[in-house]
Amino acid sequence: MTMRIVVALGGNALLRRGQALTAENQRENVRIAAEALAPLADGNDLVVTHGNGPQVGLLALQEAAYTEVDEYPLDVLVGETMGMIGYMIEQEMGNLLPFETPLATVLTMVEVDAEDPAFKDPTKFIGPVYSEEEAKKNAAEKGWSIKPDGDKWRRVVPSPAPKRIFEVRPIRWMLDNGAVVIAAGGGGIPTVYDREGHLTGVECVIDKDFCSALLASEIDADVFVVATDADAVFLDWGTPDQTAIRRATPDQMDAYDFPAGSMGPKVEAAQNFVRASGKRAVICALKDVAAALRGETGTTIDPEVADVELVRA
Amino acid sequence: MTMRIVVALGGNALLRRGQALTAENQRENVRIAAEALAPLADGNDLVVTHGNGPQVGLLALQEAAYTEVDEYPLDVLVGETMGMIGYMIEQEMGNLLPFETPLATVLTMVEVDAEDPAFKDPTKFIGPVYSEEEAKKNAAEKGWSIKPDGDKWRRVVPSPAPKRIFEVRPIRWMLDNGAVVIAAGGGGIPTVYDREGHLTGVECVIDKDFCSALLASEIDADVFVVATDADAVFLDWGTPDQTAIRRATPDQMDAYDFPAGSMGPKVEAAQNFVRASGKRAVICALKDVAAALRGETGTTIDPEVADVELVRA
Repeated sequence: MTMRIVVALGGNALLRRGQALTAENQRENVRIAAEALAPLADGNDLVVTHGNGPQVGLLALQEAAYTEVDEYPLDVLVGETMGMIGYMIEQEMGNLLPFETPLATVLTMVEVDAEDPAFKDPTKFIGPVYSEEEAKKNAAEKGWSIKPDGDKWRRVVPSPAPKRIFEVRPIRWMLDNGAVVIAAGGGGIPTVYDREGHLTGVECVIDKDFCSALLASEIDADVFVVATDADAVFLDWGTPDQTAIRRATPDQMDAYDFPAGSMGPKVEAAQNFVRASGKRAVICALKDVAAALRGETGTTIDPEVADVELVRA
Repeated sequence: MTMRIVVALGGNALLRRGQALTAENQRENVRIAAEALAPLADGNDLVVTHGNGPQVGLLALQEAAYTEVDEYPLDVLVGETMGMIGYMIEQEMGNLLPFETPLATVLTMVEVDAEDPAFKDPTKFIGPVYSEEEAKKNAAEKGWSIKPDGDKWRRVVPSPAPKRIFEVRPIRWMLDNGAVVIAAGGGGIPTVYDREGHLTGVECVIDKDFCSALLASEIDADVFVVATDADAVFLDWGTPDQTAIRRATPDQMDAYDFPAGSMGPKVEAAQNFVRASGKRAVICALKDVAAALRGETGTTIDPEVADVELVRA
């Protein structure tokens, strides 16, 4: 039976921790991701979304290093990363799929609320680490918000909630015609309506899992998959009692706390999708996506679970 | 009557000569272009393609300025410019069109022939000018081909002919559903099949007018428009005898010579489209596109012209 599947690729799926952000490393990782995802396209509708954290950071550094032209705003840089990463995913997926499979990478603009409280409390780290002194100098000169990250400082930008994805109809048309679609890269280009009613870019980044979950419900996906580097959502992670959540409802997941910077937003995005759609979401390792869709591994958040199913790791 | 129109925006439509390549300048020029093009979407299918010469040059400079990571190849940079420029065009067109008009920017990969003679004779200037000494140093260190450009030197890359556009079907589906499509930015991402049959990027750039003409014939466009900063194709340009060609067949155009670096490729691309499709092509100033489509100004290349029509400027 045909399923409509949205898979969100984590930043770590595109660049392993500690790897240099070279084109070759990115392409190698994209190839590994494509090998995991291409089988899903067989008989199903497939949308691939992706993060862009390391890439948008790199572009910001390159911009800053070339001082002849003022730095470009984040909306434009996010657009650039969609072209960079979308291209690699489209090409590597195309190399694995039957030649006649159509593929399309669709630039994605996302409306956020100019009154979103996130604009008053920037929390998302982007770009490199600085000493406190450097960071404060940049903050003064460039109007950045900065926060400590461990013993260093970094720029932080707001991460408001996605309200509307503008390209939902084109994405649906492509899926209806059998295309594999790459969309919502980096959480989408953040935009707001200004006082004159014009859509314009805004200096922030949107969480790619929240954006992907919204896209999944807007295109009536049957399942939303968050592909990451963890095998599942764990309780007591890193302790002798470490336990994987195999299946739970969104409400059952509410009973647990997950780290704000990593698993927390993935769980919340998955809950959002399940609550909006009545369908299921899966959080799993990239290599396990096919098995996790069969319920054999990973964590499935499903509206119809009697009791939380746990698996001792 | 509904027409399917492909408009190729010249690099000068996105950045006027001598302007700094800031995000603000680009956006202002994109807004002007959108004002000229938005009326065409009313009742017609519209595809907007665009150049990326200045932008890909800027990205290459930014890359070179940030030395922590090796420079990215041209295929990836072209992908980035599609995201950057496509975003601005989509947003500014959207601000002028009725809210319900769907828009979509589609990443475009183009196959070129690895045996194209252009690979043996790089001719397309990209990036900044250098002294002869700097240029030769770069050539030795980076394997660049370089050529004199006036009294300075620049990097040159091959500019092979586009053979196949991979995203033709998705672009057609979007047009069939009434979307305004932005595609084939910067002539498309150049790709070749390697010996294992894998599609991969290749270090060159494709002429955006040739690529746009191919796209126009592949999607059965009724008219292909090259929007530039010249009012028409002229004979004896810059002399007292300066004369605009108002209408001519592709064969009649063959009788004239046009400058290789500027009007020549535009005329050849327009001829290619008319010969392949039996439909007409228009070369005109961006601001005049609507009038030129009515035959009132610009140059129309049309298979059915008895005698060349000339207009003394």
